[in-house]
Amino acid sequence: MIVQKYGGTSVGSPERIKNVVRRVAKYKALGHQIVVVVSAMSGETNRLIALAKEIQAQPDPRELDMVISTGEQVTVGLLSMGLIQEGLKAKSYTGAQVKITTDSAFTKARILSIDEHNIRTDLANGYVVVVAGFQGIDKEGNITTLGRGGSDTTGVAIAAALHADECQIYTDVDGVYTTDPRVVPEARRLKSITFEEMLEMASLGSKVLQIRAVEFAGKYKVKLRVLSSFEEEGDGTLITFEEDDKMEQAIISGIAFNRDEAKITVRGVPDKPGIAYQILGPVSEANVDVDMIIQNVGVDGSTDFSFTVHRNEFDKAMDILKNKVQSHIGARDVVGDNKTAKVSVVGVGMRSHVGIASKMFRTLAEEGINIQMISTSEIKISVVIDEKYLELAVRVLHKAFDLDQEAA
Amino acid sequence: MIVQKYGGTSVGSPERIKNVVRRVAKYKALGHQIVVVVSAMSGETNRLIALAKEIQAQPDPRELDMVISTGEQVTVGLLSMGLIQEGLKAKSYTGAQVKITTDSAFTKARILSIDEHNIRTDLANGYVVVVAGFQGIDKEGNITTLGRGGSDTTGVAIAAALHADECQIYTDVDGVYTTDPRVVPEARRLKSITFEEMLEMASLGSKVLQIRAVEFAGKYKVKLRVLSSFEEEGDGTLITFEEDDKMEQAIISGIAFNRDEAKITVRGVPDKPGIAYQILGPVSEANVDVDMIIQNVGVDGSTDFSFTVHRNEFDKAMDILKNKVQSHIGARDVVGDNKTAKVSVVGVGMRSHVGIASKMFRTLAEEGINIQMISTSEIKISVVIDEKYLELAVRVLHKAFDLDQEAA
Repeated sequence: MIVQKYGGTSVGSPERIKNVVRRVAKYKALGHQIVVVVSAMSGETNRLIALAKEIQAQPDPRELDMVISTGEQVTVGLLSMGLIQEGLKAKSYTGAQVKITTDSAFTKARILSIDEHNIRTDLANGYVVVVAGFQGIDKEGNITTLGRGGSDTTGVAIAAALHADECQIYTDVDGVYTTDPRVVPEARRLKSITFEEMLEMASLGSKVLQIRAVEFAGKYKVKLRVLSSFEEEGDGTLITFEEDDKMEQAIISGIAFNRDEAKITVRGVPDKPGIAYQILGPVSEANVDVDMIIQNVGVDGSTDFSFTVHRNEFDKAMDILKNKVQSHIGARDVVGDNKTAKVSVVGVGMRSHVGIASKMFRTLAEEGINIQMISTSEIKISVVIDEKYLELAVRVLHKAFDLDQEAA
Repeated sequence: MIVQKYGGTSVGSPERIKNVVRRVAKYKALGHQIVVVVSAMSGETNRLIALAKEIQAQPDPRELDMVISTGEQVTVGLLSMGLIQEGLKAKSYTGAQVKITTDSAFTKARILSIDEHNIRTDLANGYVVVVAGFQGIDKEGNITTLGRGGSDTTGVAIAAALHADECQIYTDVDGVYTTDPRVVPEARRLKSITFEEMLEMASLGSKVLQIRAVEFAGKYKVKLRVLSSFEEEGDGTLITFEEDDKMEQAIISGIAFNRDEAKITVRGVPDKPGIAYQILGPVSEANVDVDMIIQNVGVDGSTDFSFTVHRNEFDKAMDILKNKVQSHIGARDVVGDNKTAKVSVVGVGMRSHVGIASKMFRTLAEEGINIQMISTSEIKISVVIDEKYLELAVRVLHKAFDLDQEAA
């Protein structure tokens, strides 16, 4: 049993929907039971949001979900027609119809349960079941949506509920790469990657899969595979929850990076309990997301506190810190730089291999690239550098860790 | 309690939706409880059907309903947003959510029941309830649609379920006229008309209201009012099930006509039982709709059998009769004319007034218009004439029955 998820670009036109039909028919002919989850046709969700905003600048969330959930509903109907036209038995469902029950957080709902009964019955009767991604229904029967990229989550949730053998995510790339091929032409497609690595890669800007979907898949042990919907061949990248095979392979899986990182430092902060909250509390209350946070050991009862935010929110964050926080906590000053970028090396292998960090720092030093901040986790080392060195840093690290070489 | 139904043109753009918002707000301010039923934005249903046909030339009916029902779903969300923006409490519902239960005849389903519980609760809590027209759900939970113009039926059905005081149908005309104002500039808007008259007017080509909705309203004694959504003032036309007031008024309510009528006569038909079925059976099996049917008393064991069909189906019907029917039943020949038109005078008053038919025939004779066929019912007299006299006939009849004069 396979769950296949196709994104908006893959179903962006009648011609492309027919391509999906051919692919589903091919898998069906091999004897698989197939559930297909689809997004809205590309551009459709944005069109509907724009329409809503013409009526109400800040659309009411319940009503917005009512409107935008129609995008996927159109696609499931069209895809089913295509499958029926091809001679297959097919049946489409909205999120409400397969009872994808969510909480009531309109526009960003979380899936609570799926009643897979109807799907199982249809599969047993030879149907290809086509389910609208991105949407559900709350306990009161209101239509909800899962937020951008929610269709991936729907696919994984259905695969989990059905205990499917594999959840295939079809996108416009043919897998997960060691880094962005536009920056490093030698970047290689990974045959497999662990969930933990994928989480680090995804959150760091390798926008292949929604991070929520990956978390969900990890939690329910769903085998995920990322594939291209535009290529006939290719095995894509398998995202596994088994590390065994992986350990035989490369120590580092990839180089992730994020161009939009802005750095802020509050200097001369009194080194006492509660100070981190007093700095970041007002920032998060203003809905500014914080990424890296670094605080070093204090000297003489005072310390420097640094963190990064998205470049678009740099001014907002600086304003809050200078006008609300600095004098309140008695800090010396607040300095920032919005011309920075983050580069990370990611790999479960680094757990059992020493020297990854020093190799990374030496490689950057040899190119004269100054490291402004460092943050590490179990399977990743991230550094903040001047943005102008970003591409150079990614290229030299990719080469230094032999990522252009096929793993043994 | 008022149910208001707005058609596709009335909600065809964000600007027009805002007009609807203002109108609903006005009624709400007067203290009414209001349920609004809306169609898809104009053009949207056709766009979705065209998209479906690109995938499957004859779209699967279940899947087509899945796709086209999204049109109304978008409108209910947008209209609710507009109402909320205006400071009102509003909540939208799909057909499935208010459990408009239908049979499973996809693309032309019939309403079986409505669960008005949620609507009543919301109304009691001060909400304007916005319901998607045209759609429902069958007993298995499949999405169904009611066929073109089904939103009128939804409006009437909800008004019936709620025992609403009035069901207002907003269209792009400001009421029902004594005849088409494009043909007779003196045509007057009727203040009221009976259901029976409306049925005759509608089926004869006054395309203001869907005939199904009128039948439904008559059956459940729902007071219907046709109004313009583009004019601020005006009481439109009330469609009543009470004749009392009406009888004091005009004998004739209006002149209906149909330009697309083609006439076919089978001559020298043996005058024996079963012959009508032998002629019309093959025609209806070919899905050709027959309108008027006339058979006169036979002479010398043979008779002439005439009927009318839509002009587009004239060739098909002639072909069936000449090649399958004529020799089979031993008729002399089959003749036809597709340059004919039908004109009808309609009015409940004619039941108690003699001389309506003779006045009609004399009026036409005075203009030298030959009557080719005549058919009558309790409240209507229809004649088929050469199409070139259609406008002249409508004008002189309108004048002869004093329809340009305000009723006493």
